[in-house]
Order: sequence, then C-alpha cells, then structure tokens
Amino acid sequence: MTKHLRPALLLACFAVTASTFAQTSFQPNLMPLPSEITQGSGALVLKSTFKVETPRTHDARLEAAIARAVRRMETAADLRHEGRGVFGTTPLVVSVAAPGQAVQSLTEDESYSLTVTSEKAMIEANTDVGAMHGLETLIQLVQPTPQGYEIPAVTVHDSPRFPWRGLMIDCGRHFEPIPVIERNIDAMAAVKLNVFHWHLTEDQGFRIESKLFPKLTTKGSDGFFYTQDEVKEVVAYARARGIRVVPEFEMPGHSAAWLYAYPELASGTVPDEIRREFGISNTALDPTREETYVFVRKLLTELTALFPDAYVHIGGDETPAPDWKTNPRILAFKKAHNLKDNDALQAYFNTRVLAILTSLHKRMMGWDEILTPELPKDIVVQSWRGAASLAKGARMGYEGILSAPYYLDGMRPAGVHYLADPVPADSTLTAEEKKRILGGETPMWAEHLNERDIDSRIWPRAAAIAERFWSPQSVTDVDDMYRRLAVVSLELESVGLTHLQSGDARLRAMAHTEQIDDLRTVASAMEPVSFGERSKTQHTDQLTALDRFVDAVRPDPASRHWSELTTTACLKKDAVACAQLTAWFQQIDRAIPHAKEQAAASPQMQDVLPRLDQMHALMVIGEQAADAVEKGSTASGKADWQATLNEAKRPAALVRFTFLDALTKLVEAAK
Amino acid sequence: MTKHLRPALLLACFAVTASTFAQTSFQPNLMPLPSEITQGSGALVLKSTFKVETPRTHDARLEAAIARAVRRMETAADLRHEGRGVFGTTPLVVSVAAPGQAVQSLTEDESYSLTVTSEKAMIEANTDVGAMHGLETLIQLVQPTPQGYEIPAVTVHDSPRFPWRGLMIDCGRHFEPIPVIERNIDAMAAVKLNVFHWHLTEDQGFRIESKLFPKLTTKGSDGFFYTQDEVKEVVAYARARGIRVVPEFEMPGHSAAWLYAYPELASGTVPDEIRREFGISNTALDPTREETYVFVRKLLTELTALFPDAYVHIGGDETPAPDWKTNPRILAFKKAHNLKDNDALQAYFNTRVLAILTSLHKRMMGWDEILTPELPKDIVVQSWRGAASLAKGARMGYEGILSAPYYLDGMRPAGVHYLADPVPADSTLTAEEKKRILGGETPMWAEHLNERDIDSRIWPRAAAIAERFWSPQSVTDVDDMYRRLAVVSLELESVGLTHLQSGDARLRAMAHTEQIDDLRTVASAMEPVSFGERSKTQHTDQLTALDRFVDAVRPDPASRHWSELTTTACLKKDAVACAQLTAWFQQIDRAIPHAKEQAAASPQMQDVLPRLDQMHALMVIGEQAADAVEKGSTASGKADWQATLNEAKRPAALVRFTFLDALTKLVEAAK
Repeated sequence: MTKHLRPALLLACFAVTASTFAQTSFQPNLMPLPSEITQGSGALVLKSTFKVETPRTHDARLEAAIARAVRRMETAADLRHEGRGVFGTTPLVVSVAAPGQAVQSLTEDESYSLTVTSEKAMIEANTDVGAMHGLETLIQLVQPTPQGYEIPAVTVHDSPRFPWRGLMIDCGRHFEPIPVIERNIDAMAAVKLNVFHWHLTEDQGFRIESKLFPKLTTKGSDGFFYTQDEVKEVVAYARARGIRVVPEFEMPGHSAAWLYAYPELASGTVPDEIRREFGISNTALDPTREETYVFVRKLLTELTALFPDAYVHIGGDETPAPDWKTNPRILAFKKAHNLKDNDALQAYFNTRVLAILTSLHKRMMGWDEILTPELPKDIVVQSWRGAASLAKGARMGYEGILSAPYYLDGMRPAGVHYLADPVPADSTLTAEEKKRILGGETPMWAEHLNERDIDSRIWPRAAAIAERFWSPQSVTDVDDMYRRLAVVSLELESVGLTHLQSGDARLRAMAHTEQIDDLRTVASAMEPVSFGERSKTQHTDQLTALDRFVDAVRPDPASRHWSELTTTACLKKDAVACAQLTAWFQQIDRAIPHAKEQAAASPQMQDVLPRLDQMHALMVIGEQAADAVEKGSTASGKADWQATLNEAKRPAALVRFTFLDALTKLVEAAK
Repeated sequence: MTKHLRPALLLACFAVTASTFAQTSFQPNLMPLPSEITQGSGALVLKSTFKVETPRTHDARLEAAIARAVRRMETAADLRHEGRGVFGTTPLVVSVAAPGQAVQSLTEDESYSLTVTSEKAMIEANTDVGAMHGLETLIQLVQPTPQGYEIPAVTVHDSPRFPWRGLMIDCGRHFEPIPVIERNIDAMAAVKLNVFHWHLTEDQGFRIESKLFPKLTTKGSDGFFYTQDEVKEVVAYARARGIRVVPEFEMPGHSAAWLYAYPELASGTVPDEIRREFGISNTALDPTREETYVFVRKLLTELTALFPDAYVHIGGDETPAPDWKTNPRILAFKKAHNLKDNDALQAYFNTRVLAILTSLHKRMMGWDEILTPELPKDIVVQSWRGAASLAKGARMGYEGILSAPYYLDGMRPAGVHYLADPVPADSTLTAEEKKRILGGETPMWAEHLNERDIDSRIWPRAAAIAERFWSPQSVTDVDDMYRRLAVVSLELESVGLTHLQSGDARLRAMAHTEQIDDLRTVASAMEPVSFGERSKTQHTDQLTALDRFVDAVRPDPASRHWSELTTTACLKKDAVACAQLTAWFQQIDRAIPHAKEQAAASPQMQDVLPRLDQMHALMVIGEQAADAVEKGSTASGKADWQATLNEAKRPAALVRFTFLDALTKLVEAAK
C-alpha cells in the first residue's frame, strides 16, 4: 500500500494529519484567536455580496475599510463585485460608537463584538479600529462548502491582551519599496498587529528624505530612500488600517551613513563611503558638541512632523564608540561633566535628545541601552535582551515591549516564537508592574533580506507572534496554531503577499527553467540556517547578491511540524502515519536525481550538490527506520546511521533539513 | 523503461525536446532576434559587475537605464551589487551620439550595435532609445555555465522592421493599478515594444481624472481611475524606457460611463448607472450639438496636455447609435447637412474632432471605422478588421497599424500570432504603400481580465508578437520561437511580471490549501477557451468575479507545442518521443484522482469535475495509442476513441485541452 501512495496526496496529508491532532470540535480558522467565541446554530450562506449598514458613525475611514473587506470577501467567496455601488443582499451591519482617536494611541479602544446568524452579520465596536478588527475576523470566518461559501453562526467578544503589537522592518540595511511596505501593512492588519515600527536609518543607509539636510540621502542612501510624500502616504495607509507608524532614527551609533554625509558630526573616525559591512561599527555622533544637538533638533523637528504618532524611536543600541575613549576633547568633556564612562556619556546624550523630543511633544523610545537611571520614567524600552531585562525595567518603573524572542532573522520555527510570552505565566511582577509591559514587536532585520524574499521571511511566522500579542495567555496549543497558520497563510497571499510565490521564482531563476517540480520538492524539506550561522559561514555585506538556494527556501516550512507530528504518531504504532512518513521519504528521494542535475548546471546551486547527496542518504535511512518502527523489527545498518545524521545536522550550503529532529527520533526508536 | 521515467524529468523534456528541433548551432536566446548577429570567439566572463563608461553623451535617462540594466545583470548573474556607486571591473561601454528626440516619435533612430568580446561589451547607438535596446539584448545574452555566468562574444547590428510596435491595455472594462501598468512597461521594454496604447475610457469606466469635468470619474469610474499625477508618472516611466504612450479616449461610442456622468451630451438613451454589460452599447455622444464639441475641446485640451506624444486615439469603433436614426433633431441635422446615414454623421463628427486635435497639434488615430474619404491623409488607422482592410487604407494613402491578428483575449497560441505579418510576404502593395503600414499593436481587451491574472494573459505571448514587429520578415521558425519564448518568459518574470505565479495563487485560493501539485499538473494541459466561447457560455459582465479554474490556466502553455512536437517525432518512429508522450499521459493521469478530490470540495471547481473525467479517458487513450504507434501494432478499442475525442473537443468548464490536436494525430496513426 505504502509504495503506491501518490506523492501529492502525501503532501495533502500535511493538513489532514495535523487536524487529527487538534482538540476541539468547533475549530474556526481564526488567527489570532478571539478572547471569547461561541458557536451559534447554522450559517450565513453567501449567495450574493453584502448590503452594508452603518447605523451610527460612518466616516470615510470606516467606509473605505468596509469596502475593502467586502471586496476581499467577494474575491474569496466567488461573489459578484456589487460592492462598488450596487449593493447585494447579505446584511452586514457595522455599528461604531465614534470614529476613535484623532491620532491612534495605546489607549485606543480596539475591542469589538461580532454576531453572525443565518440572517446577517453584525459588528459592534466603540471605534473604527475595533470595527476593522471585527471585519478581519469576519473575513477569516468565510468557509467553503462544495455548494458555495458561508460564515458559521458565531458570537465573538474580543479585545487584545496587549496594546502594543508591532512588526519592525529594517529598511536601512536593504531598502524596501513602498509597495512592499504597504502589502506588509495589509498583512499586519489581517492578523491585528497595530504598530509598524519603521527602522529608517542604519549604517548602510539613511532612507528618509530631509529637505534641511539633503546630503543624508544624496550621499547616504545610494538613491534608495522614501520621499516625504511617500512617508505621508504610508502613514495614511497605515492609519486607514488601524496601524500606528513609529519611526526609528538610530543615534548615536548605527549612523555611519548619516556621518558619511555629515562627517562634521562624528566623534572621530569618519567613513569615506557608505559602510557596506554589517555588524557593529565604530562610528558615532559626537555627543560633546552643541552643533550635534542643533543638528539633531532641526532634523527631528523636520522628520517627526511627518509622523503623528506619540512615540519616536532613537535606537541607541550597539555604540562601542572607541573615539569616545580616545578623543582628547571628548575625554575632557567626560571629566568636566563627571561622566565616568561611555555609558554615562550616552546617557547624557539620551537626556539631551529626550529634551528635544519632549519639546516636540514626542515620547522617546529606544533599545535596552537607553534604560539608565538618568532617564525619566516616560521613555519606553524595547528589549532585545529579553523578558528578564524587560521585567527589570518594569520594576524600576519603565514601560517596555519585548522583542528578543521574536527576531525573524533567527529563522526559528513559528512554534518557538509562539510560546515566548512578554509576561510569562510565572512572572513575579506585580499587577502594576505587569501593566508596564505594553506588548511586543517582532523585528525583521535586513542583513540577509531583499525586496523579493522579504515576505517569506516575515510571513506566516509573524501571524503566530501576532496571536501571542493579541489572544489570551492560555492559548498555547502549538499543533492547533500550525493548523490555523496554514489557513491564514493562504489568506495572507490573498491580501497581496508573495511569501508563497517568491521561492518558486527564485528556483526558476537559478535553474533557468520553469520545470522546478523536483527542486521545489527538495526545497520543501530545507530551511535557511540562522542569522548567526549564515553570518559565520558566508561573508555577506550590503552588496552581496542574495540569490542563492538559501534565499529560495522558507523558514519553518510545513514539513518541519508535519514530520514531527507524524513521527510522534508513528512511534505510537500508528501504521498510517508510518506509511505516510515512508511515502514522503520516497517522494523526496525520487526528486533528488533531477534536482541534482539542475543544481549541477546552475552557478548558484553548486554548494547544494553535496547537501542533496546527504539528503538521499537520509531518505534511505528514513524509509528503513519507518519500516522497522512499523514492524517492530530491527533495522540493519543502524550503526552507520548516527554518523550520517550527525554530519547532516551541521549547517551546509546555508540550509538545514527540517525533518532531522523527527528522523533522529525515528532512528532512535528503530530497534 | 517508460514506466519509470520521473514525471519531473518529463516536464524538463519540454525544453530538451524542443531544442532537438532547432536548426542552427549558434542559438542565442534572444527575442526579438536581431537583424544581424555574428558569433565571435570566446565569451565575456562575468566575475564582477560592470565598470560603465559613457564616452559621448551621458544624460540622466541613459544613466538610469544603464543602472537598471546593470542591476538586472547583477541579479541574473549572481554578482555583487557594486553598481550603486562602486564600480566593478567588467568594462561596459555605452556610446551614444545624442540623447534623441525631446518627444520620442516614429522617426526616432532605434538602431544600435553591440559588440561583446572576451574583454568587454560595447553598445553604440545614435540615441538613448537605441542604446536601451542594446542593453536589453545584452541582458538576454547573459548565459549560465556551471562555473558562473558569461556573455558569448558576438557582434550585433540591429534595427526594427517597423517603427510602431505596440501593446494596448484596456483599463476601461477593468481597472489596472499603476504597478501593473509599470511592470508591463518594463516587460515591453525587455522585448523592444515601443508604444503603450492606453485604452482609458470605456462604457464600463472613465479612468482618467479630469479637473474640468470631475463627474467623469466621481460618477463614471467606481473610484477606480488614474489621477493626473499618476498619468504623468506613467508617461515619464515609459519615456525612461524608450516607450511612447498613446492615450485613447473613445468617442462617440463606447462612452456609456462618460454619458452616465454627463447625460446632456448623449444623443438619446442615457444610462442611469454605469453600464456593467459588455458588448456594443447604444449610447453615443450627440454629434449634432455644438455643446458636444465645446465639451470635447475642453476635455481634450486638458487631457492631451498630459501626453507629450504626437498621437491621440479617439476609438471610433462600434457605434450603432440607434438614436441617430430616430431622434428628430438628429434626423433634421443629417438632412440639413446632407449626411445620408450614420456613417456619414460619424465622419462629420470625426472631422470636427480632428479639427480640435489639429489645433492642439495632435494627430488623430482611430479604429477602422474612422477611415472615410472625408478624412485627410494624416490620420492613422488601427485595424481590427485585418491586413486586407489595412492594405486598402494604405492604397488610399492612409497610414495604419495592424491589430486584428494579435488580439490576446482570443487566447490563441503564440505561434498563430507569430505568423501573422502586418505586411505579408505576398502583399501587392507598392513600396511606398507598404511604408504606410507603420507596424502593429497587440490589444489586451479586459472583459475577462483582472489585475491578478493580466500578466499571464499578455505574456509571454506578446513577446512573440514583439518579434514579429521588430525582426526581419524572414524570421518565421515557430519551433525556434517557442524554444526562445521559454527563456524570455523567465526573464520577464525577473523584470517583475507575475505571469508564472498567478495561476498557482489562484489554484491555492480555490483549493484552500498550499498543496496544489496535482491541480497544477492537470492545469498545465488546459487553456482558457477563446473570448467568443467564454462570452457565449458564461454570462460575464464587469461585476463577475473572475476567479474560476479558467482564470488559473494559461493561454498556450508549454504542453501545447511540446505535445505537437513530440507527437510528430513519435509518428516518425522516434521511440524516445513515444516513451515521453506515454510517460506524460501517465503523469497527468496519476494527478487526476487527487485533483478531482480537491475540485469536488471547491465551490469554484465543480464544473471542472466532468472535464477531469474526460481527461482521464483521454490519458488512457493516449497511452494506448502511443504504445500502438511505437510498436506498429493495432490498438484495440480504437473505435470508441473518436467519440471521446469529439466530446473532449467541445469547450466545457470554459477550458480546452492543449494536447487534443496532437492526440488526434496519434489516434489516427494508431492502426
């Protein structure tokens, strides 16, 4: 039987098997899960598009949001696009008490209720933002049946656990065009994230136009930057979707592009071109000269005016600034001001910048390094150091958000990010201190990123993190999360993301043919090595072409969780699971010879060749081990297997196999 | 042996087999083929990016074009992106005599020479536009080797056969966002098309902002229109790529959206909403009232100012205008002006519009219907009626371009379009008359089009048509065209088109899963029915959701030409070809059960189910027939085959099988 299973059927098992492991009978494919959902009876059958009523407020933002939502449901549910003017017959009532805050803030009421019956759908909210969240839930509830589409009857009462739920995109190291930013904002809205943290300046590029200091972009951006009109467009685009935009202007470090443009602001060493190397640079602003603060004040006055949000991020991380220890003028300044070390000098700098921001009616935010006792309690700390560092700040009275466990460039599985909690269940913080943990942000650093692959690096993993920030703390079923993630991933494609397509495009470009079925099959069982591993193995700087096999494979593809689930089941003597595993190993193994042929002909895939040989050996081991486990027999050759596994675990060709943990368990059990 | 061929290897045979049939030893993958190309010795090995020299002119447009080209070659050839500022070491000399015309015209010198040696690449041209064509040829010459990328040594002297090489996109029936337009302009430039004909107004929508007459878009566009700033952006974008933009404002017919906004301009029947039905409407401007011409003059004065091009298209087709035969005022006008019928009245209208355009220093262009003896010889006729109609105009002294054989919505194979010549080899026109045939345009009408699938409807077929318009008339090898088309199709993806991705996205959306391998396999052997067939079978209007299986399959997929080539070879007793065919039939047949399962669960794929049953029957016939042909034996059951084939030939589920012609030949030969 096993030998005749169709490969594609096996792949379909990713979904089927996963659902076997799910726990409840009512399983709406929602992400994030709402705080309260009750199933009603029947369903709202979608035979025609919606007849929209907005009985209370109906301002332009809400109307546009409803129009977009209706259009998406029409597209998803095969309905005529009557929404443009001629309305349909399915009642959709959106009842909003007031539009909400003029400038969306942490205190915006994001709650909503959603009631779907067989007669109509109704969203009630206090604000437009709440209603928009309700619309996203409604869209996710649209389900296919062979006869058509419907929305199951439900009652939802929902509000977020944390008010700050962010995605940071680093547009400094590699620039991302506006359409990339905008489609990621749409995706954020789809999973109820509400802060777009825009990392706009870096050693490798200053990406926002300053009319006062044009050299910041004419010299510091290679021509890749956002005009002020574009910034305003993005801010408006985000606001229309209930998303705040928090800009980051890195200082005093991570400022090499800035100081290449205006070397007179530097504390010493001045780069003579844009810094292409990543990592920590020695370049920093000179915190001892008044000219620096005059410049910073003018610049922040100009640029923060583009961002209505109350918060401005000043970075502040990773500033070794060796010049601060050797420049005689700076040494003298430290002595005169009783600043014992660089940290104290940076705290002085931060205090000065804080005064500027305060005068601009902005609240200052920065990475862990800004947290020093000199700073008042109204700054916000973004922690790359972790929950403990964040909790320490909270005890001291500082508000903060957690980022350390959510670094997407780490290429870790969604399930790992998912279980990291900004306020862990065992937290010893008091209730008041806990409130200071505002939420979290998932950062997408851009060392190994370009505009073609960015979506697949962020999504769908960020959706699992969005659930962590929104849903009740008790929602922690990783298997169910993966089941729903597969569904939300398709929805994210429908809002415009390219995360399911970009890998294929890259395989075609590397293989110089449209016939990539076998490459796709082998790629589906590999994932990129972590940021650290890649940095160690491949010299990568800003000018490196990111067009290798590693850039074509996805972080945490479905094969990882599926192979773990199915192996667990096989080890429990589930014969079907063992057969599925065997057939999957065979399917991949059959793809290897042709994939090798294509890799051998491609300049970009030479390093993948030995990896494919390893993969073949692993598939053979997998087949034999699964067979032995199923039969309870002893696998011959097991002695040699460990060496093969150990060798395969070492990162090579910048990729890892997704199934190695599962295979290791299988091998251990094959006795 | 046959039974064990890997499916993916078989798919790879699409390319391999095709090249078997090609004829010459030096086969650069260029499209369009240049008028003269000679192979040199060796190759320019690409180890680092280019060191660019522009020894003569180097204006901003040229510099930007070179920067883009270098970037594309870096991306294609795995080179570090040094082009942004720090130059590489591979010499690229671009020597241009003068930037060219301030406003690109028919007389722009588009010729170029390209010389590649093992030392350097050199482009020489009289104008920037010529140099840009040379850059596109250079990019297409980049070839992979297992060790890296190189450009073979060549000498090219090239210039176009026709000066007018256009793509028309209908943005009236369905709107296309700016990014869609811009990436299609990039694709046009990649295959040396030089006219973007922008069909901006239709019964279903008026898509360009008028500040004088805002109701044209507030009432006539559903909110989907181009602002004047966006229009200027597109025109600049196109100019930067050597492409003229010719706007079309349809009058006096195809103007229902216009007259919905301004009913006082209509000759009678006025729509009370935007017309959703396609086809020919009865609505028309009133040609008898001076107010009409006052409005048209103001509107054209405002809108044509956005387009620097010398030509303005007024449509002019399909104006039955029944009101012109019944409205007493119009009847009186016709009598008073001695206009014997509606054609004469339309000619009067055209004369009046021509006077307006002439005063605006624009040349008038329109579809066949504008060609009447009342009109002077400086109008240009775009022929939807065909080469004979065009030749007739040329004999009368009118210039014209051919469009009839290039309608992309006809869903015909690239090979059919390819062999249609604007000036057929057997033309009886004099040399002077032939010169009046300026070239051609391929129109993409938008009844069945949306922004998600448009690229796959235009490309890669339009590349074959581009070759017809550019390359020498003698270039007519369809097999070689298809071989090169497969390569250029990948290049078109690299410039940003989604034609290779959109079908997969639609299959995922319909099947509600990422696991679409089997659906992809069956879809690869189907194509959409023609425009006419779809219009007959499915009631489609502007509000119809275009989200069915037909929208996921591509026109003229690789399986069509491959099955024909391979069948021809098999019939010549090529055993490998017969085995490939058999294995291909088996591969598809294996995919059918799971594809059926997925179709059965999908609301949008119910109509595909019987088609898949037919497909299974055809695959069985194919296997048996190929086997019989290979062995020279008699196939049993042949009597029943014809009925199955006949049934399968009828369009159903809005799709056709691509391999039916090939299979019919195979069946006929199986005796």
